[in-house]
Amino acid sequence: MTLGDEIFRPGSSSDGEIRAGILVTGTEVLTATIRDENGPWLSQQLSDLGIELVEILVVADHPGDLASGLEHMKSVGIDLIVTTGGLGPTADDLTAEVVAAFSGRKMELDREMEARIQAILARFAASTNLDLSTDALNEANRKQAMIPVGAVALNPVGTAPGLIVPGQSEADPLVLVLPGPPRELKPMWETALKEPMLRQVLDRATRLRKYRLRMFGTPESELAMSLREIEKDGLSFDGLEITTCLRKGEVEVDVRYRDAAEGSAEQLKEALKERHSRTLYSLDGRTVDEVVSGLLEGRRLGLAESCSAGLLAARIADVPGSSDYFAGGVVSYSNEAKRDLLGVDQALLDEFGAVSAEVAEAMATGALDRFGADVAVAITGIAGPGGGSEEKPVGLVHFNVRTAEGGVRAAAPVIPGGRRDVRERSALVAMHLLREMLA
Amino acid sequence: MTLGDEIFRPGSSSDGEIRAGILVTGTEVLTATIRDENGPWLSQQLSDLGIELVEILVVADHPGDLASGLEHMKSVGIDLIVTTGGLGPTADDLTAEVVAAFSGRKMELDREMEARIQAILARFAASTNLDLSTDALNEANRKQAMIPVGAVALNPVGTAPGLIVPGQSEADPLVLVLPGPPRELKPMWETALKEPMLRQVLDRATRLRKYRLRMFGTPESELAMSLREIEKDGLSFDGLEITTCLRKGEVEVDVRYRDAAEGSAEQLKEALKERHSRTLYSLDGRTVDEVVSGLLEGRRLGLAESCSAGLLAARIADVPGSSDYFAGGVVSYSNEAKRDLLGVDQALLDEFGAVSAEVAEAMATGALDRFGADVAVAITGIAGPGGGSEEKPVGLVHFNVRTAEGGVRAAAPVIPGGRRDVRERSALVAMHLLREMLA
Repeated sequence: MTLGDEIFRPGSSSDGEIRAGILVTGTEVLTATIRDENGPWLSQQLSDLGIELVEILVVADHPGDLASGLEHMKSVGIDLIVTTGGLGPTADDLTAEVVAAFSGRKMELDREMEARIQAILARFAASTNLDLSTDALNEANRKQAMIPVGAVALNPVGTAPGLIVPGQSEADPLVLVLPGPPRELKPMWETALKEPMLRQVLDRATRLRKYRLRMFGTPESELAMSLREIEKDGLSFDGLEITTCLRKGEVEVDVRYRDAAEGSAEQLKEALKERHSRTLYSLDGRTVDEVVSGLLEGRRLGLAESCSAGLLAARIADVPGSSDYFAGGVVSYSNEAKRDLLGVDQALLDEFGAVSAEVAEAMATGALDRFGADVAVAITGIAGPGGGSEEKPVGLVHFNVRTAEGGVRAAAPVIPGGRRDVRERSALVAMHLLREMLA
Repeated sequence: MTLGDEIFRPGSSSDGEIRAGILVTGTEVLTATIRDENGPWLSQQLSDLGIELVEILVVADHPGDLASGLEHMKSVGIDLIVTTGGLGPTADDLTAEVVAAFSGRKMELDREMEARIQAILARFAASTNLDLSTDALNEANRKQAMIPVGAVALNPVGTAPGLIVPGQSEADPLVLVLPGPPRELKPMWETALKEPMLRQVLDRATRLRKYRLRMFGTPESELAMSLREIEKDGLSFDGLEITTCLRKGEVEVDVRYRDAAEGSAEQLKEALKERHSRTLYSLDGRTVDEVVSGLLEGRRLGLAESCSAGLLAARIADVPGSSDYFAGGVVSYSNEAKRDLLGVDQALLDEFGAVSAEVAEAMATGALDRFGADVAVAITGIAGPGGGSEEKPVGLVHFNVRTAEGGVRAAAPVIPGGRRDVRERSALVAMHLLREMLA
């Protein structure tokens, strides 16, 4: 928490609260060789189900570390433990065994599962050049088909089955064992949600509802002040969980609430809309890229990018179906490209320099013309680390957005941060200028 | 671990091993509102110092959760706990207090620190429009200047001091308390490394050395087989920790070793070089973007991107100083742009379609010409989800790389995955074709 961050929490009524923990096993994650995608994804899923996530623990593929992690989660009163990873066929994939021991259950060969995995592995071996002997295959196969007695086995998406493992008593945590690869974990999570053994625990939670607002141009500190004033003006925040977060130059406001607090949640949304009508651009969680995509329908967009060098084009094209309105762009990194591909007058470049309002305007006009576009965006700036001067410091970026009908929006902020920050923020600012122009 | 992943571990000699844990506090991280940058970064730093990271634990800003996390880490024999976050001025920033209690130390006002923070906050308030009363300022100030007795206070980078807090005995873990914002945490980590109290613990670890190899085009399973064969051929892996990781279409091989195993580590590098000379492109950890940047020196590059829509340009321009060789690019998203900005013959578009070897070649030739370049890359493909056919499926991407001197590399793989995968992988494949062409 830095100055300006604010989190308001709902009253700590404990009815309907299910506490969960996520246990990520993977030396690759721990050593930061790969980034954990599963923890954040599962966190969102649990939150949508109204379940309180108490902690995420990342441990190496060592049985001792995994076991002590499970014991720790039990000791802090966690009801549901979700493990990810460690389900493969190799010797250090030990999650199933460790969880079985933790839950006081023996492992037993599941013949049906064995046959299922055998079929999958045979297909896998045939489709690759892996030199796997049949013995090695069968051994790996058998290891993965060992299921704790009394557990529910979830059919493999890759080669490993998942598990739902109950404890010895109602008070013990239920353990959901999922594979590590996200492409296997996600579908298996959906399957697990249908299993009565898991359902029984999840259904004890009261579901949280939520909405997300997005703002551009309001400092987080100002938003925090608005929230304090709205509360002072008499709106009760009881039963609301309000999180504000500064992310890549935008402010996100997440509001979570149980049904009883729906009225306050709606009133809060209205109060924020009223106070920040200029900067609050998304009431339904849509990103600026999605909003702009909607506004571009039936239009034809051309871009002229210098310092952002394709980052705006890449964001525009990231939206499926963007080829309907995106004609193209020029990454005019050199002066010659500005001149030859966008028709910027050499005299303008000589007189005002490549980073100037005049050249930004000429680039936008050139993009309108060359792409036969009816709306164009030009970005030219100094990304650094070199190239800055007193008059034109690193971070100075000139924007020019214009339509064929004569609409113009220009801006020239000095964007703080390093080279990558300046370039990424340039694409963001341009996206918002485009939104304002078309809205 | 999935089939094909392999991790080989050094012998578990316990001398010189210092065990560390990272405790991340932050409801925003736990709820996946923001991504934790600190855990992975600290993991790398610790690894470079030869310290074994046992776990990363993420908890909410609740004192109870933080306290039980600290106790858990102590219980698993961790020597050094690094906490991040929870050092701000607001009421739920409680890390310092909780750590003091954990270490059996009282909190005491540090007058000198108070004056230092006062000066920082006054500057901060003056530079923003924050309506902070002097009382509120002083209170926040005093809270942050409370230091556990016997701890080392680290000067604030933002507004919060860091701490190094010893336990009651040598056997207790040392706790390094760092702020949450990465821009504050990183410099403070460097400062902390100079403090004798921390140094004393770190110096007990034997430093690990490491190298990283990067490969493009070798399946991870094939690499795993090479490793097994190299070991079978008589090279001892004792004292080596080998991690292979598939990241964004490339394979990374990390080898960590203590001094005694340097010979084996070097022999392993040679053996891999010999076996995978075609695909092993980086022996010194440099990324393909860095390698290509070096190869482009003295050249002039022009790009023609369709489906990747600026992603290759953005990668090229991400390297500081790229303006020396990067002339620019055309994002020719529409057929008109291919024709009007790159000079692609309409007849080619009509006869072969926009996604064809012929059009890719014409785009590259056009880019050479229009940018006055001596090397050009063209990418045109079907990113999906729509637009595919039996003959030209989603994921089919045509590449054409050529030099003014007449060198050509062309390829037309079908790239698996979703729209974003296809687009990002396109930029990666193009980067490698460019590397092969210039090498």
